[in-house]
Amino acid sequence: MTIAGKLVGVGVGPGDPELITLKAVRVLEQADVVAHFAKAAQAGNARTIAARYLRPAVREVSLGFPVTTELPRHEATYCDIIRAFYDEAARELAEHLDHGLLVAVVCQGDPLFYGSYMHLHVRLARRFQTEIVAGVSGMSGCWSAIGTPIAQGDDVFSVLPGTLGQDELERLTEADAVVVIKLGRNLPKVRRALERTGRLDRAVYVERGTMTGAMAIPLAAKADDCAPYFAVVLVPGWEGRI
Amino acid sequence: MTIAGKLVGVGVGPGDPELITLKAVRVLEQADVVAHFAKAAQAGNARTIAARYLRPAVREVSLGFPVTTELPRHEATYCDIIRAFYDEAARELAEHLDHGLLVAVVCQGDPLFYGSYMHLHVRLARRFQTEIVAGVSGMSGCWSAIGTPIAQGDDVFSVLPGTLGQDELERLTEADAVVVIKLGRNLPKVRRALERTGRLDRAVYVERGTMTGAMAIPLAAKADDCAPYFAVVLVPGWEGRI
Repeated sequence: MTIAGKLVGVGVGPGDPELITLKAVRVLEQADVVAHFAKAAQAGNARTIAARYLRPAVREVSLGFPVTTELPRHEATYCDIIRAFYDEAARELAEHLDHGLLVAVVCQGDPLFYGSYMHLHVRLARRFQTEIVAGVSGMSGCWSAIGTPIAQGDDVFSVLPGTLGQDELERLTEADAVVVIKLGRNLPKVRRALERTGRLDRAVYVERGTMTGAMAIPLAAKADDCAPYFAVVLVPGWEGRI
Repeated sequence: MTIAGKLVGVGVGPGDPELITLKAVRVLEQADVVAHFAKAAQAGNARTIAARYLRPAVREVSLGFPVTTELPRHEATYCDIIRAFYDEAARELAEHLDHGLLVAVVCQGDPLFYGSYMHLHVRLARRFQTEIVAGVSGMSGCWSAIGTPIAQGDDVFSVLPGTLGQDELERLTEADAVVVIKLGRNLPKVRRALERTGRLDRAVYVERGTMTGAMAIPLAAKADDCAPYFAVVLVPGWEGRI
């Protein structure tokens, strides 16, 4: 009889290798198997941060996304492909878990906050013991890197995907403090929504957060409409400060 | 001529001492002065987490809040008292900074996300070099501790203070994923708002997050109306999961 293993979603923080937690380091040092998500054969930043802590005998599993371009999320073919990918990834990790191994999935940011790990978690948490190591989120890395207080007191704070429609963005930017994620080609729409709700002057555009090559400028001063998918716009709250 | 010091807001995470970052540990080990906020002569959890990393010769500064009960934040007397407290705290830290010292302010959670440190930051950032060490937020500690995916894909995620009015709470709980903070005496109102917007069945009540004595139950199963101020209610999103 073998004892079933344990699955751990390990947040490694927003990009700065020093923003990993002691708990994440400990789990990575103990793990038998370490899995990471990869796009277009690139291992990604989470794996780079984790690499220095892995045991020499560790087994690495690269989970390569089958699609690399943005597709409408409600498109049936896209959903089928992604669902099959996560099913297969969960099956592969389950084999290691069945052998009683400690399987760590490294995640940039915080595993249960818009993270790919969640798809594995819901597929495996009923069968195996799981643990989550919370991480510093990407958005926190951004507002901390530029020293911008984001929310205080009775502020309402909202995270809005730039993929929302223009009307919905306008309605929702009325929160006191806002972070817009998933910018990419949505930047012009986000800019219009903030302009029409009188928030453009407070908005800050941040690229690459706490990583090498980070940059932040007022959104109003960003002349072009080009943005990477992982850039964010911060609209700080705390207007009634004392 | 002396070189001015540096002020660092150090997030030490949500409560579990292992959820501190390597960067926070390094800054605490280097700091000449370490300040913490204290309520009713209790040094608080952030100071406890930080204590093991401090140099023997470190100078500790306890910043004791002048009021310990909840008061309406718009009440003039309250604002005057709090403003004077932060002014005096900033003045005390500025003396150390003027002597060229490295001054760390320890903060539970993430310093610029609803944190008291922000009040010192805005008073000192124009005069002195500052740095923020982002931390794992309290809310992330909560959803990670109970293994509950909170937001995914195109979800709108909102943090709502329980101090809002009933109407505003009802309108705002329509986000896909919601965290209600500042519960305390606001719990009955929060419960009503979630019930009237059909969210009560999904709501989870979490007390003491990642700390000793943590507990989580469905909000619908919590029979009484008693909650500590720092308890939270989580309403997970990600309903259209694939």
